Amino acid sequence: MKSSEDAVSDGGFTIPGESSYEELTLDLARRWKADVIRDSDGTELSPELLKTGMEVYSTICIIRDHNEYALQHPSFQQQTILESRPSIARGRSLEIDLLAGYSREQFSVNTSAESVRLWQVFDRTTGKELPSSSWSYDEASGKLSIDGTVPYHVYSADFFAWRIWEEISMYNHVTNGWTKEHLMQLDPRYPEVRRYLCDWLDKWCISHPRTSVVRFTSLFYNFVWIWGDDSRRRDIFTDWGSYDFSVSPRAFDDFKAEMGYSLECEDFINQGRRNPNHMTHSRKIRDYIDFTCRFVSSFAKDLVGIVHSYGKKAYVFYDDSWIGLEPNGRYFQSIGFDGLIKCVFSGFEARLCAACESVDVHELRLHPYLFPTGLGGAPTFSEGGHPEEDAMLYWSRVRRAILRKPVDRIGLGGYLHLTEGYPEFVDAVEQIADEFRTIRDLHRESDVLSYDKKVLVLTEWGRIRAWTCGGHYHEHPDLDLINILEALSGMPVNVSFCSFDELPSALDGYDVLISAGTEHSAWSGGEAWADAGIIECISSWVDRGGVFIAAGQATMLRGYSTLLRMSHVLGVDLLDDRRLCEGRWDVQGREGFPAVIQALEHVVLTDPETEILSSDGIWPAVTRHGFGKGYGIYAASFRYSPESAAALRSLMGLDGSESGNPCVDIAVFPASGKAVAASQSGKEEVFSFHGRSMAIKPYGFEVIPF
Amino acid sequence: MKSSEDAVSDGGFTIPGESSYEELTLDLARRWKADVIRDSDGTELSPELLKTGMEVYSTICIIRDHNEYALQHPSFQQQTILESRPSIARGRSLEIDLLAGYSREQFSVNTSAESVRLWQVFDRTTGKELPSSSWSYDEASGKLSIDGTVPYHVYSADFFAWRIWEEISMYNHVTNGWTKEHLMQLDPRYPEVRRYLCDWLDKWCISHPRTSVVRFTSLFYNFVWIWGDDSRRRDIFTDWGSYDFSVSPRAFDDFKAEMGYSLECEDFINQGRRNPNHMTHSRKIRDYIDFTCRFVSSFAKDLVGIVHSYGKKAYVFYDDSWIGLEPNGRYFQSIGFDGLIKCVFSGFEARLCAACESVDVHELRLHPYLFPTGLGGAPTFSEGGHPEEDAMLYWSRVRRAILRKPVDRIGLGGYLHLTEGYPEFVDAVEQIADEFRTIRDLHRESDVLSYDKKVLVLTEWGRIRAWTCGGHYHEHPDLDLINILEALSGMPVNVSFCSFDELPSALDGYDVLISAGTEHSAWSGGEAWADAGIIECISSWVDRGGVFIAAGQATMLRGYSTLLRMSHVLGVDLLDDRRLCEGRWDVQGREGFPAVIQALEHVVLTDPETEILSSDGIWPAVTRHGFGKGYGIYAASFRYSPESAAALRSLMGLDGSESGNPCVDIAVFPASGKAVAASQSGKEEVFSFHGRSMAIKPYGFEVIPF
Repeated sequence: MKSSEDAVSDGGFTIPGESSYEELTLDLARRWKADVIRDSDGTELSPELLKTGMEVYSTICIIRDHNEYALQHPSFQQQTILESRPSIARGRSLEIDLLAGYSREQFSVNTSAESVRLWQVFDRTTGKELPSSSWSYDEASGKLSIDGTVPYHVYSADFFAWRIWEEISMYNHVTNGWTKEHLMQLDPRYPEVRRYLCDWLDKWCISHPRTSVVRFTSLFYNFVWIWGDDSRRRDIFTDWGSYDFSVSPRAFDDFKAEMGYSLECEDFINQGRRNPNHMTHSRKIRDYIDFTCRFVSSFAKDLVGIVHSYGKKAYVFYDDSWIGLEPNGRYFQSIGFDGLIKCVFSGFEARLCAACESVDVHELRLHPYLFPTGLGGAPTFSEGGHPEEDAMLYWSRVRRAILRKPVDRIGLGGYLHLTEGYPEFVDAVEQIADEFRTIRDLHRESDVLSYDKKVLVLTEWGRIRAWTCGGHYHEHPDLDLINILEALSGMPVNVSFCSFDELPSALDGYDVLISAGTEHSAWSGGEAWADAGIIECISSWVDRGGVFIAAGQATMLRGYSTLLRMSHVLGVDLLDDRRLCEGRWDVQGREGFPAVIQALEHVVLTDPETEILSSDGIWPAVTRHGFGKGYGIYAASFRYSPESAAALRSLMGLDGSESGNPCVDIAVFPASGKAVAASQSGKEEVFSFHGRSMAIKPYGFEVIPF
Repeated sequence: MKSSEDAVSDGGFTIPGESSYEELTLDLARRWKADVIRDSDGTELSPELLKTGMEVYSTICIIRDHNEYALQHPSFQQQTILESRPSIARGRSLEIDLLAGYSREQFSVNTSAESVRLWQVFDRTTGKELPSSSWSYDEASGKLSIDGTVPYHVYSADFFAWRIWEEISMYNHVTNGWTKEHLMQLDPRYPEVRRYLCDWLDKWCISHPRTSVVRFTSLFYNFVWIWGDDSRRRDIFTDWGSYDFSVSPRAFDDFKAEMGYSLECEDFINQGRRNPNHMTHSRKIRDYIDFTCRFVSSFAKDLVGIVHSYGKKAYVFYDDSWIGLEPNGRYFQSIGFDGLIKCVFSGFEARLCAACESVDVHELRLHPYLFPTGLGGAPTFSEGGHPEEDAMLYWSRVRRAILRKPVDRIGLGGYLHLTEGYPEFVDAVEQIADEFRTIRDLHRESDVLSYDKKVLVLTEWGRIRAWTCGGHYHEHPDLDLINILEALSGMPVNVSFCSFDELPSALDGYDVLISAGTEHSAWSGGEAWADAGIIECISSWVDRGGVFIAAGQATMLRGYSTLLRMSHVLGVDLLDDRRLCEGRWDVQGREGFPAVIQALEHVVLTDPETEILSSDGIWPAVTRHGFGKGYGIYAASFRYSPESAAALRSLMGLDGSESGNPCVDIAVFPASGKAVAASQSGKEEVFSFHGRSMAIKPYGFEVIPF
C-alpha cells in the first residue's frame, strides 16, 4: 500500500533515540524521515545521536528526582486527603487506625497542627459531623479516639496524609520489581520549592545545550491513584481527572485568601465517593479546580520563561502529573507552551490535541508504544504480537480525525530496538509517516471542505474537557459520550463544547446540541437539570429549529414528574420501578433506519406522535419527536462503529457518508483539487466519489485529484 | 397415582354448578366428594342442582347491578383522581383537555363545586403548585385554562372523575364483545347508598332461601385500573394494591373529620406516579389506607350482620373489589366473615389464606379455572391444552404450603361442562381432592412438626400484606420477595411479618430477619432506612445472635456513605456509578455452597472478612459476614426453585431438606405416627426418610407410617 501521492515531504516525525542502538536509530530516522530525536524519562541520548542534525527533545519531570532536597524538607512534600476505613462503634467510644487499609509506602499521616485543625470526623450512619471536642489524635499510636459514639453507628475521619512515594515511579518500581530508592515529590505550593525548582531548571538548561525542546512530563500534580496494603485490593481509588493529589493545608489557606471562603476535607472525601472526573461536581470543587488551574498555570509560566530564556522551546506531554494544566482550559494559553504532545489510540484524542489553539506545535505520539506488551498485557513486540496491525488499526482511527483538523507532528515512544524483529512494523510506520505528511501538506495548502453544520456538545465540563471523557477509549468503551466523540472526530462538521453555565448564549448559531451520559454524571449534567432556565432555553432553541440529541440517561434528574428533564422535547422518558404499573405505548418501528443502535430497557414514549426510528421490538432504540421547527432525538445508547457514525450523521440531518460506504471517509480539499479517501476497514472496500466507483485496500489511503 | 392412605373422608370440596349440565354436575360432585355447590357471577343454579343436599354458595357483587338506582343518583357513583396529560406551554396561557387520553367510557369529569375546589394544577417542570386564581375550568368545553404560564414548562391538573363503568364488567364486556348495558357502581361513602344496599341485601336474602353461604365478590372498591382511549395504549395504569378507586370529595371530608388534617389530590397523583402497592408510601397515604380499611370494615360488618340475621354464613372471595378488606389487616376480624376464599397458583397464596385467623373457613379455589384459555391465553380446556398437567403442577405448589399450615376447603370455578373432553383432568381432581382431605385430616389429628426457628419478614406493609407482593407469582416472577415467600411457604419454620413501625420489639424471640426488594419499594422499605434507630436495633439484634438476610437492594437508600444502610452488618455494598473509580476486593468463592442464586453486577465487599459463599467469578451472589454472635447474609437475588429454597434453609441455619432431595418435602405428624412425602418434581425422584431410601412418582404424594 503506497499513497497515490508520489512526492512526499519530510519531517514532522519524532523518533525516540536509544543509546547502544545508534545505527538502528539513524537508519529508522532516515526511513521514517524523522526530524526530531527524543530521550525517554530517565535516559540520556548518546553523543552519536546528539550530533545527527535532528532537533533534540529532552524529557523532564519537574517535581520528581529531588530526593535530597525532599529529605531535608519533608514538609514540602505533596499530600492528599484520606478517609479512614469506616469503623463500627460497639460501645460509647471508638478508636480508629487512620491508615488501616492504605499503603504505608505511599502515605504517612500529616500530624502537624496546621493539618490536624482541618480534620473532620463523621457519623456516617447519620451523615453528621462530630464536634472536634469529641475526638482526639494520639500521634504515638497513630490512633484517633472518639468519645460519645452511638453503638452500631459507623464513623470515619477525613485527614491529611503525606504522599511519600511519587506514584508513577511507585507503579514502575512495583511493576518491574525495582529495589532502588523510592522517588519523592515536591509541592510547588511552597515558595521555597518554587525557588528551588526554578534554580534547578536554570542549571538543567545550562547543562543541556543540545536540547532544543524541553518536553515537560507533565507538570506538578498527578491524577489521583490511591493504593491499598492488601494484595486482594491493591487499588483503592484511581481517577484520571480528579484533583485530590493537589490538596494540602497550604492550598486550603491560599484558596481562602483568594476566594474568600473555606474548603473542608469533606468537600474532597464526599461521603467516601470523592469527586471523580465523570461525576457532577459541587460549586466549591469547581472553584477549587479553577483555583488550582490558575496556580499551576502561573508557576508553569515561570518555568517556561526560564526555558525560553535559554532559547529553547517548551512542550508539554499531556499525561500523568497533568492536574491543573487542562489544554483546552482558560489558563493554558497563559503558560506559553510552544507545543502540546498527546498519546493517541483514537480519533477523539487527536481532536483534543488539535483543538488546543494556543500552541504552535500539536504532536501525536502514536501507538503501539515500543514496549514488549501492549493493552491489557497483550503481546506487541513479543511472541504472537503483530505491531504492524495494531499500528494500522490505531492510525486508521487517528487519520480519520486529522483529515478534519490538522496536527503538526507525529512520533513514537519507547525502545527502538524492539522493532528489530518486525520489518512489517517498520514498513507500516514508513507508510503512516508518509500519509501523515500528505495530510499535513494538504491542510497547509487549503481548508478541508466541511458542512455548514455546527454541533455543540453539552457537559458540566464544557470546553475545559473538550474531546475527552477522561481516558482512552478502551478504558471505558461503554460510555455513550466517548463513542459519540469518536464518531464526531471524523465528521466534516464543526464541533464545539459548552458547559451549562454558558447557556443560553452558547446555543446561538448552532444546529445540533448533544447531551449523553448516565444519571449524575458530569457528561449528562445531573443537578444542572434542576434549573428550569436550562430547560426553557434548550426547548426554545429546538422550537426555533434546533436538533437536540440525547443519549442514554442524558437530562436525567430524579425528583420531578419525569426522569428525563427534556422529556417534553424528546417525546420519551425512562421508566423506573415506580412506573411499573403504567401501560406503555406500543413500539412500532419505522423501516429504513439502520439497526446499529442498541435499545435500552425502560425507555418509554410519552407522546404517541414520537417516531420510533429503531427498536428491539419491545423497547425503543432511536426516536424522533417533532417539537416546533426542530426535533428532539433520543438514542438509547451509542457505541462507535462506522455504521453508527453514519446513523448519527443522518440524525443530524446529513447524508450517512460522502463515499456511499460508512467505512470510507472522504476529505475534500477544494483549493488543491484533491480529495483523500481513507478506509477504516480491515478488508477491501468499494466506495464512490463524484459518481465513480472505486476499490480501496484494507486501511487504505488514496489521494484522488478531481 | 393413589394415595397410600386408603380411608379418605368426604367433603371439603366446592364444585361450581352449571345449569343445563345437571347430570354432569352431580356425577362430578360424587367423584370429587363435593359437599358444596356454588353459582358463578351472574348465573343462577337450577332447581335440580339446588335440591342435591349439598350446601349452596351464592355469589354477589354488592356495589354493581344497581343501574336503575345509579341512574337516578349519578352523584352516588364511585370516583377517582386523574392527572390530565402533561401539556407544554408555548406562550403565557394554556388550555388543557382534562380527559385527553383517558377512556371516556370509563370516566367523566366531576364538575361539582365540592370536586373542583379540591383540584390542583402543577407546573411539573418546577414541581410547584399554581395558585387556584391562575386557572379556571369551563364546563361547556371540558377545558381547563391556565394564565401566566412560563413558555416550555409542562403543566398538568389533578381532578376528580366519575367512574361510570364498573371495571370488572367493563373488562368482561370488552373482552367478550358484549353489547349489553354498561354496569355502573355505587359508592357506599354516602349514607343513602348504604341504606339502599342494606335494603337490597335484606330482600336478596329473603328471596334466596336455599343459599347457605353468601359469597361476597368482594366488597366495594376495585383495585385501580385506568383505561386509555387509544388502542396503542389501552392500559394507562393498573395496580392490584393501590387505593385510588376509593377516593372522592366525600372521602376527603370524612378523612379530615376523622384524622384532623386534609388530603390533597396530589397525595394520590404523586407526580403522576400514584402510589402503587410495591412502592413506599407517605404517612398521609398510609393514614388514608387505614382510614379506608376502617370504613370498609365498618359497612361490611353491617352487611354481614344482615346475612347472619337470615341464618346464612358470609364468606368473602378476596379479589377484584377487595380494597380495604386486607384479610391479615387490623380490621378484618371486626367484619365477622365466616370464611375467606382465595384463588391460588402458588404456595404463598395458600399461606396468605391460611394466615387469616379470624375466619372459621379457609377455602382455596384451585387452578386451572374451568375456562377455555388459561395464563397468557394459553389453551387449557381447548385444543392443545393439558389441564390435568396444569392442575398437578399448581397443586404440587399449593400442597407444599398446606402441609405446613392447613386450610379447610378447596374448590374449582368456571364452566363444568368444559371438563367433558378431559377425563384425565377429572381423575386428577379426584386425586387432588383425596390428597387434600388426607392432609386436612392429619392436621386435625395433630400438629405438624416444625423447627424451633422463627423467621420474620420485614416490609413497609408488615402483617397487613402478609404472604403477598400484590398478585400472582407469574405476574412478577422477578421479584425477590415473592420468590422468598414461595420458598418459605413450604418450610417447617414459623414465619411472621412485621413493619418498620413495630421495630425493635417485633424482633424479640426471632432467629432470622429477612428484607428483600428494590430501592424505594415497600418490600425493601425505602425511606424507612433513614431512621438510625432502625439500623441500631437490627444491628444490635444481629450482634446478639440474629441472622439478617438481605436480598437485592434491601436496605438501600441514597444520600449516605453506603447505598445499603445495613452494609456494616452485611459486609457488602452496592456500587453505583459514583464508585466506578474504586478498586474492589477480589471475589474468592467458597466450595460447597450450591450455585443456585444468581450474582448481581455492582455488589462489592466492604470488609475483607466477608465470606463469599457463591459468585459468578466477578460479582458475589451470596455472602456471609460475621457480626458479633450473628450473621449478615446477602443474596444478590432470589428465584424460587426447590434447590434455592434448600439454599435459603441452609442460610437460616437448617439442613437443606428433610428428605435428602430438595424436590421432596416431608411433613411429619408425630402424634399420628405418620409422615407425608410430597414431590414438586415432574419426574420420579428418590428420597430418604428415617434412613430408608424410597422412590416417589412425578408430583407424588405418600403417607408413610413410622
